Amino acid sequence: MNQIKDGWFSELSELWPGQSMSLEVQEILFNEKSKYQNVLVFKSKTYGNVLVLDGVIQCTERDEFSYQEMIAHIPLFCHPNPRRVLVIGGGDGGVAREVLKHEQVEKVDMCEIDEKVIEVSKKYLPKMACSFDNPRLSLHIQDGFDFMAKHEGTYDVIITDSSDPIGPASSLFEKRYYEFMKKALRPGGVLCSQGECAWLHLDLIKNMQEFCRTLFPTVSYAYTTIPTYPSGQIGFILCSLSPDVKFEEPFRVLSEAEKAKFDLRYYNDHIHRASFCLPEFARKVILAKDGSEVNGANGAGDSK
Amino acid sequence: MNQIKDGWFSELSELWPGQSMSLEVQEILFNEKSKYQNVLVFKSKTYGNVLVLDGVIQCTERDEFSYQEMIAHIPLFCHPNPRRVLVIGGGDGGVAREVLKHEQVEKVDMCEIDEKVIEVSKKYLPKMACSFDNPRLSLHIQDGFDFMAKHEGTYDVIITDSSDPIGPASSLFEKRYYEFMKKALRPGGVLCSQGECAWLHLDLIKNMQEFCRTLFPTVSYAYTTIPTYPSGQIGFILCSLSPDVKFEEPFRVLSEAEKAKFDLRYYNDHIHRASFCLPEFARKVILAKDGSEVNGANGAGDSK
Repeated sequence: MNQIKDGWFSELSELWPGQSMSLEVQEILFNEKSKYQNVLVFKSKTYGNVLVLDGVIQCTERDEFSYQEMIAHIPLFCHPNPRRVLVIGGGDGGVAREVLKHEQVEKVDMCEIDEKVIEVSKKYLPKMACSFDNPRLSLHIQDGFDFMAKHEGTYDVIITDSSDPIGPASSLFEKRYYEFMKKALRPGGVLCSQGECAWLHLDLIKNMQEFCRTLFPTVSYAYTTIPTYPSGQIGFILCSLSPDVKFEEPFRVLSEAEKAKFDLRYYNDHIHRASFCLPEFARKVILAKDGSEVNGANGAGDSK
Repeated sequence: MNQIKDGWFSELSELWPGQSMSLEVQEILFNEKSKYQNVLVFKSKTYGNVLVLDGVIQCTERDEFSYQEMIAHIPLFCHPNPRRVLVIGGGDGGVAREVLKHEQVEKVDMCEIDEKVIEVSKKYLPKMACSFDNPRLSLHIQDGFDFMAKHEGTYDVIITDSSDPIGPASSLFEKRYYEFMKKALRPGGVLCSQGECAWLHLDLIKNMQEFCRTLFPTVSYAYTTIPTYPSGQIGFILCSLSPDVKFEEPFRVLSEAEKAKFDLRYYNDHIHRASFCLPEFARKVILAKDGSEVNGANGAGDSK
């Protein structure tokens, strides 16, 4: 199978050997190499416009809300007062769109290394790239490490909306990156990172949970369903500087009036709690080496 | 895209237009038309042996446990004493394997219309088709409607493990089928049926929930994640003759000793509860016409 053949785009990667999701293509809208990666946008038959980086689907207009809402609202609703937020990556603008729904947020810094992703998203994914003019958003075309080194002790929430651990985002899955984030957080700060798929990358997730536990007193793992990510789901790595945070229990729950304003299509406080409940095969592996629980709510305690 | 081309099987159907899951094929093990459908089994590169009926993946050895465990254990753990169980479909044997783990179950009737499916499963899917010799299992190669008409008031639990609503299983998605199941249940009986995917077939699910509510006092909807089903998840329609059943809360929870015997890879009591928490887009639609909740636990009450 090739990437585009007979009118279909197929997502092939050594990260998920032997399997491939395909979408029917109506029109190729953009296809160029940026300084960092190949950037492809096509109009699909049934998933709206689709952004593809280095052959891997980043988002489609039909199901992007699942990922964007969950990676943004899980950490934000777990923080009592998230005023300063840093988004690393997220060039399509979808995460910033969700973060800015929170009135407490005074300023969002967004640090995206590839300007081309923002440019094509503004043109072809306008429902995601709708917040770049928001006065509370500051955009930085820059490497995340360099940016964080100059912003220690600054953020209540850091969200890493990255591509997979091959290519420009590979360093974002290493312990060193989490050390930089730890320093960039304010006391009580939380972080949430794209955490790959338990059906595919359990070893990677286990490894990341383990090094996170050497850095943070509270570490957990949640996931969301999303048809166009490999195997239909993607997870989130959550860490907090506070030992008292219980990620599986949102600190704030929206009132009816707030809900109307948030216009959520995936997130609610029930799915927030449920997203931490792992199937048995994943729960067993994502336990700490010392046998302690990833979190209390997903039943890890049962195997003690 | 064709069904098998250049060493890959691609799942194409009018039920999920514009998208397709593909698996790399190592060897075609069986490919014949039965009396009812085309039956294909191939050895995949990374998902073990794969059973395909009329071009649609029914199960792979790598991820089948998610579906089989959830469709069997959710209803069985919601029944206080499930002694008689009927499985409609399920020719691969995986659901029977899970049902028979429950010691309370005295007898399982399995009613599969296509003998060929059982035959190839015994040969190529031995880890699923491992219970056909169990003395508590009675196999009936027969139409489910005919079988149920002769077994009124007989079952504590009826599980419908069917293919999609195109082809031989289409009648299993109609109200008439639920009327037959209602009659075949004992007082307090529960049923659980393959309920398609909320990302793809929300209208079908809504319609089925609505007619179920005209027949049963308790109706609910749960789902599980599974990479090789379309869009990566599949749901379950749950009904009970008892108004007191709360599907989202298991009636029985396994002890540590029982857990070792059950050898579960997906199901645990936490994922049982979480499986009823629906994302907002699905929760809104799967509400009753009169505005009442599908179930209390998934937060449907919030929108009142």
